[in-house]
Amino acid sequence: MNLAELDATATARLVKDGWATPRELVDAALSRIEKHNGALGAVVETFGDQARRAADGPPTGPFAGVPILIKDIGATVAGALHSSGLKPLRDAKFTVPQDSHLVARLRQAGFIIVGKSTTSELALLPAAESPAYPPARNPYDTTRSPGGSSGGSASAVAAGLVPVAHGSDGGGSIRIPASCCGLFGLKPSRGRISFAPQIGDVNGGIVNEHVLTRSVRDSAAILDILAGQVPGDPYAAPVTVPSYLEAIATAPGPLRIGISTRRITPRGTLEDSHPDCLAAIEHTRTLLASLGHTVHDAELTELHDPQWVSRFISIYASGMALELDFAGRMLGRPIRQDEVETLTWAFCELGRLVAAPAYLDAWRWVQMAMRRMAPYWERFDLLLTPTLAEPPVPIGTFVSPKDDPLAALMRAGEFAAFTPPFNATGQPACSVPLHRTAAGLPIGVQFVAAYGREDLLLRLAAQLEAAQPFEHAATRTT
Amino acid sequence: MNLAELDATATARLVKDGWATPRELVDAALSRIEKHNGALGAVVETFGDQARRAADGPPTGPFAGVPILIKDIGATVAGALHSSGLKPLRDAKFTVPQDSHLVARLRQAGFIIVGKSTTSELALLPAAESPAYPPARNPYDTTRSPGGSSGGSASAVAAGLVPVAHGSDGGGSIRIPASCCGLFGLKPSRGRISFAPQIGDVNGGIVNEHVLTRSVRDSAAILDILAGQVPGDPYAAPVTVPSYLEAIATAPGPLRIGISTRRITPRGTLEDSHPDCLAAIEHTRTLLASLGHTVHDAELTELHDPQWVSRFISIYASGMALELDFAGRMLGRPIRQDEVETLTWAFCELGRLVAAPAYLDAWRWVQMAMRRMAPYWERFDLLLTPTLAEPPVPIGTFVSPKDDPLAALMRAGEFAAFTPPFNATGQPACSVPLHRTAAGLPIGVQFVAAYGREDLLLRLAAQLEAAQPFEHAATRTT
Repeated sequence: MNLAELDATATARLVKDGWATPRELVDAALSRIEKHNGALGAVVETFGDQARRAADGPPTGPFAGVPILIKDIGATVAGALHSSGLKPLRDAKFTVPQDSHLVARLRQAGFIIVGKSTTSELALLPAAESPAYPPARNPYDTTRSPGGSSGGSASAVAAGLVPVAHGSDGGGSIRIPASCCGLFGLKPSRGRISFAPQIGDVNGGIVNEHVLTRSVRDSAAILDILAGQVPGDPYAAPVTVPSYLEAIATAPGPLRIGISTRRITPRGTLEDSHPDCLAAIEHTRTLLASLGHTVHDAELTELHDPQWVSRFISIYASGMALELDFAGRMLGRPIRQDEVETLTWAFCELGRLVAAPAYLDAWRWVQMAMRRMAPYWERFDLLLTPTLAEPPVPIGTFVSPKDDPLAALMRAGEFAAFTPPFNATGQPACSVPLHRTAAGLPIGVQFVAAYGREDLLLRLAAQLEAAQPFEHAATRTT
Repeated sequence: MNLAELDATATARLVKDGWATPRELVDAALSRIEKHNGALGAVVETFGDQARRAADGPPTGPFAGVPILIKDIGATVAGALHSSGLKPLRDAKFTVPQDSHLVARLRQAGFIIVGKSTTSELALLPAAESPAYPPARNPYDTTRSPGGSSGGSASAVAAGLVPVAHGSDGGGSIRIPASCCGLFGLKPSRGRISFAPQIGDVNGGIVNEHVLTRSVRDSAAILDILAGQVPGDPYAAPVTVPSYLEAIATAPGPLRIGISTRRITPRGTLEDSHPDCLAAIEHTRTLLASLGHTVHDAELTELHDPQWVSRFISIYASGMALELDFAGRMLGRPIRQDEVETLTWAFCELGRLVAAPAYLDAWRWVQMAMRRMAPYWERFDLLLTPTLAEPPVPIGTFVSPKDDPLAALMRAGEFAAFTPPFNATGQPACSVPLHRTAAGLPIGVQFVAAYGREDLLLRLAAQLEAAQPFEHAATRTT
């Protein structure tokens, strides 16, 4: 048995059955991080002493003793460095005094926080590269990115450094690295998991947090732990099942699934996805049919409207400007242009030029698009798309030259066209690792359910996993 | 028996028991409107022929044949003039082709739309006065306002023109006129009632729709009809009971109720409420104690922060600018300064100056305040405040002079200080008609529950109504 090959559920069982102690699990995770992180750049900080102390305490909860990493933006770990991928915050050793709700719930469930994982600057780009730390690398090919922005978490889980890691998804940042690293990544519904005691996301609820996992059961069990409204939350996602873990024990029955593979690019053109991504769809189509589901080619044409691009830019740029200003407030002085990436600065400058009514008008447009799209989920139970339009890209793909500051964003929009619309709609969506390129690089496919229906996504994903067990080849190569 | 004295439930029973036909009810409502609307200004348009045709059809639904008015902003009536209180839209006879979800559900329940009710311009002010129509007047004293912005609906229901009318509440616009007109007015939780197929409210979900009623049971029964997520909605309120109407059959048991009566004014000062409003609180305190509830003086000090004022101005002004621009798009040309009230123009100009990141920062502040306030609803089941800081005010109170364009807004902020924070938080809140001034003017008190807990508000309000039946004195004076 190799610890690095287990999911969180199997790891927890080792403790319950007396085959390992929490201390042994934590020591093993810390030593794997020490051994491999130089090549992977997945982890920005470890909490060795604190984690060992927690491991030596009495084991409690369903995941007692299981090591986990927390992404270095969003959820906070009491007393830990919280850089949000910003070098000035890292240099200032900025810390947050309290665990956020999500981290507290993970600890109550027995997880042991062993460290924090690499993200892109303010989680803007679908990679995990920033001026603050060395880039996170894809364990399947370390010249390539693990995707992002939860790329450090994905790299660490795919490489077996930890069995599970936290992520957040404001435009695909859980699904994208899951796809690139052969993991299961679920973005829950808007309002499913509380950001308390932080605000989380004032920007229309586009960001949602959860975990990247090696198995569907881990994602379901952890969603059971994290889901639920907390007093002070502005709204909540509807409860459809008492337990996601119980729900996945039952196959979903025959589903109607619509396939959409064309994407709108930042240039406003409508294009096909990369052949490897289309091959992943065809493979999935066959697998779905073999399980009794009905699969239809049915482009979600509302996604083909070029206005998505300009409307998203208004929304994301405004939010990013607030985040940079807010980080400056945390730092006690404004963050300077020379301290951030070319794109980040330009994008925030753009956001400052957006007038509030124009920002609201962008949301009005997006919400009308949501209404137009909603009937798709009456025709079909689920939408199937490529998670990404391309296979994993080389490190350094998303860097703007000084004379074309938005170039990296345009490139990111080519790469990650299928994920952001469901941040806008608040619908749950997941990436399932069902395919590989000829070179062995993972290619995920995205399923999207109606608002609130994580249960359906998880049940189908569990059925697919049973039919074609997820291969975690990176574990054996590191 | 006087039809004008019945609530919607009793009116529906007349049809069910064969004492009246829908046609008789509709004819009676139309003739009461014709007789009294000159003095009241409550109704801007009637749908006589259409309503009579609907009444002559087969009666269906629990409220078959019951006449209702729809406020002239927000929910849409197919083919009807939809002015939003804007004279240029009224002059252009702007119509919307379809019923909104709320109107369709009301029709399915048997209600018959007999007309539309007066609102303020873009529902900005807590009155129902605009350049588009004569002002709505308070049936208890026609020199005074019924409050607003759902003032036409309140005036009509208090005067017995119809048993129930639609309202919307983005800063108190259901609760305020309910208080001024001796009615029950519940603002539901954020996400409880869908705005489909319209967007409704892109501005953080501050607006919610429902009805103004003569009884608690009407509000509960109609909430059963209207509540529920519709595909394409961005989020949903949690479901806590299968039926509000069933819930109010059971008394709520002893509750802990905190009282807060001080308010922050637009000048940033902390002040007491008018003695009549404090008398209403004292009366309610005694009534609550007699019903076995525990009542504590406990100021909700988070509401005393003067930042509420500036933060709300950023949020509301930005939203108002979008609404005015959007109305211009509907009209096919921009709306001019000379076509709207002095305040409306100035407030929209202010909104255009707000940068999107500053707008988002205002929401960040508000959401942090929500988190700080949330523990109050762990200490107490409900908050009790005056609905308004003053008794009903004279017609014309909220008009800005040309040389002080924001004056009307400042005056409105003095009057309506207790209601807007719960539009920001999304919590349900209601005004209950439990008191009168010496001159007989109605004074409501506001109860506020934790997010999603309309059931608790309705159960307590029903218990209070049983203990002290609501007096609808205006019905007898018109």
